[in-house]
Amino acid sequence: MLLSYLGDSALTMAINFGMSVGAFFLCINIIPKFKDSFISANLFGIDLNKQTKKKVPEALGVVCGAVFLCTMFLFMPVPFYKQLATNTPGKFPHHEYIHYLAALLSICCMVFLGFADDVLNLKWRHKLLLPTLASLPLLTVYFTNVNATNIILPIQLRDLLGYDLRLGPIYYIYMGMLAVFCTNAINIYAGVNGLEVGQSCVICLSVLVFNFLEVQGEHRLGHVFSIYFMMPFFAVSAALLYHNWYPSGVFVGDTYCYFAGMTFAVVAILSHFSKTMLLFFIPQVFNFLFSVPQLFHFVPCPRHRLPRLNHETGKLDMSFSMYKADSLGSVGQFFIKLFDFFKLVTIRRNVGDGGMYTEVNNLTLINLALRIFGPLHEKKLVTILLVLQVFCSIIAFFIRYHLKKIFYDS
Amino acid sequence: MLLSYLGDSALTMAINFGMSVGAFFLCINIIPKFKDSFISANLFGIDLNKQTKKKVPEALGVVCGAVFLCTMFLFMPVPFYKQLATNTPGKFPHHEYIHYLAALLSICCMVFLGFADDVLNLKWRHKLLLPTLASLPLLTVYFTNVNATNIILPIQLRDLLGYDLRLGPIYYIYMGMLAVFCTNAINIYAGVNGLEVGQSCVICLSVLVFNFLEVQGEHRLGHVFSIYFMMPFFAVSAALLYHNWYPSGVFVGDTYCYFAGMTFAVVAILSHFSKTMLLFFIPQVFNFLFSVPQLFHFVPCPRHRLPRLNHETGKLDMSFSMYKADSLGSVGQFFIKLFDFFKLVTIRRNVGDGGMYTEVNNLTLINLALRIFGPLHEKKLVTILLVLQVFCSIIAFFIRYHLKKIFYDS
Repeated sequence: MLLSYLGDSALTMAINFGMSVGAFFLCINIIPKFKDSFISANLFGIDLNKQTKKKVPEALGVVCGAVFLCTMFLFMPVPFYKQLATNTPGKFPHHEYIHYLAALLSICCMVFLGFADDVLNLKWRHKLLLPTLASLPLLTVYFTNVNATNIILPIQLRDLLGYDLRLGPIYYIYMGMLAVFCTNAINIYAGVNGLEVGQSCVICLSVLVFNFLEVQGEHRLGHVFSIYFMMPFFAVSAALLYHNWYPSGVFVGDTYCYFAGMTFAVVAILSHFSKTMLLFFIPQVFNFLFSVPQLFHFVPCPRHRLPRLNHETGKLDMSFSMYKADSLGSVGQFFIKLFDFFKLVTIRRNVGDGGMYTEVNNLTLINLALRIFGPLHEKKLVTILLVLQVFCSIIAFFIRYHLKKIFYDS
Repeated sequence: MLLSYLGDSALTMAINFGMSVGAFFLCINIIPKFKDSFISANLFGIDLNKQTKKKVPEALGVVCGAVFLCTMFLFMPVPFYKQLATNTPGKFPHHEYIHYLAALLSICCMVFLGFADDVLNLKWRHKLLLPTLASLPLLTVYFTNVNATNIILPIQLRDLLGYDLRLGPIYYIYMGMLAVFCTNAINIYAGVNGLEVGQSCVICLSVLVFNFLEVQGEHRLGHVFSIYFMMPFFAVSAALLYHNWYPSGVFVGDTYCYFAGMTFAVVAILSHFSKTMLLFFIPQVFNFLFSVPQLFHFVPCPRHRLPRLNHETGKLDMSFSMYKADSLGSVGQFFIKLFDFFKLVTIRRNVGDGGMYTEVNNLTLINLALRIFGPLHEKKLVTILLVLQVFCSIIAFFIRYHLKKIFYDS
């Protein structure tokens, strides 16, 4: 029954699945073997939320990325085996094959950039410039192959603006920014063991469920394409999660966050479901919006915003940003008042050297979770955050398949 | 006149040239700015051939590689501006555009691998596996677009074997190995300031001359494609050479060697002139063959084979490999006798602790140059080696355009 559901992609999907299983076992075996060479290369971090201060190798996401790329290089010819076998000149579907190349080029660029960032601590301008450029080949391919830049408008707006709106260049800017957003959104929703990889695994599974639901629909080819990328991605991520789970034996590094973000952006763009993809990023979007006052320095932003270990209880507390009571600009004050109104922040006022100081918890979803649930053990905290991610994915599916009916006619 | 010679590619070539000039100035400016972050990241080396023992940042080739990739991402849509402007569905030349994507994917992979190697000191199996896999997309594109695997046989052999020989899969193995060879051949012909980048610049210029000579011929598109890659490559390499020239302010790292080698392999494969490309690699091929006994450990191979500084004269002497007189296997003995017969090695015998020892100069072209010309100042040595490279390119052109007539009819 599954075979007939998947149609003529069933065999290639089975091969993709088999190769993903292989990639999983390869990753889970070689990650520990690379630990020493990462530490000798000065690529390590001290886990701030542990009593022991031992060196944990950093940036092991690069191993995942490399295994993923190798798997995809080997898999790429498979969906085209029929055409390759006959190889009639002029008959090869270059317009399909080009999707794979453009996608892997963008992903490879981001793995490279992420690793360079972990090694060299790049500046912000490099982190924004290279992803934008790396998505250029992707956008060219989209332009020549799909070039659908119109969005269907909700029923309520159609009297005003018509059935659909052709966004043109704005749509390309939106897609370019999607790549930058996905990569950085995962990167700033981090700080406790297993969270970066855990959230990526949940998002990846959600995308896979969505793809399998839609694989018989109108955009069949796009969803098959997405499945081919998501299965190996899930495999290497799950292997990394095994080693990165509390207590972390390895850290994933910016490399992994960039790799994951770009992989999601690539399938969303080329398979044309970027709005649904953003629905799976609800916690990340919330965390980003919540962080904005600190990211743009309206509120002072310490180097680390991760929660703080209470050495006596062994649990994690919120971390705070401290500043002189009158030093905050009007924009910063506005945000703090707004967040206070919605009960999102804890504000403490105390007297220190030279006057009054204000402390406000760092504006991250992680700290908010600690504010709601009280001090938690790290393992419990990350479990709650991942359950939240799953819960948000369920909401996303609800919006995608039910709420949509209010705004769109089937 | 030049305009009419280049035909309708003249405008895009001018744009490519302009972007290359931009890439040159960008590289020459930002390389020094990255020095400190490389040294803080533990990416530095001590120049063994200098009296001072200061830290020289290593692996700056990664900056070149990144600038090259960005330049090509921006340039890629340019050759297709007419088709992009009209964008008629189904009319876009995907089979041409796919060449650019496959080429950049392979190059990006190699820059990434090279950088990972510089940071993590990868093992040999990784260094052979990843380039082979990275050339897979390239070979698939070649298979679907060109798939010319026949070689025209020399006149002298035609009675025996026919006009041409269809190599089939062997040709693909040959192309896969070309990528591995080019990357490693440059990597092992190194050790004095400026040699890696200098030789790459000479090879690149030779390829450019060849492309411009052939641009009106039968394989016009291939040579235009090659020019689009070689001009920016020359630009970033020249900028790196400026900083890497004696006395080196920066080292280029494995990253650069891999980047350069893969770029050459890519244009040679996709533009179908791999035999001519190999002709431009004469010194590298010689150096590789000469090194074989040490690379495969028939003769003991010390960690560094570069020449040794004579602190009194300030000049470079040959470096030697020392071993117990009777410890060499029969294969090793054969090679040493063979090289001795051709006067390629200096052999010294002396008595040490516990018996007779044999010293033989390390089997590299650099040491051979020192054997022929005597001890040389480093700057003079590298100049001689680069002049040799130019001389070999002239021989290559002679073989390509004149000697060929003996074996092939026109």
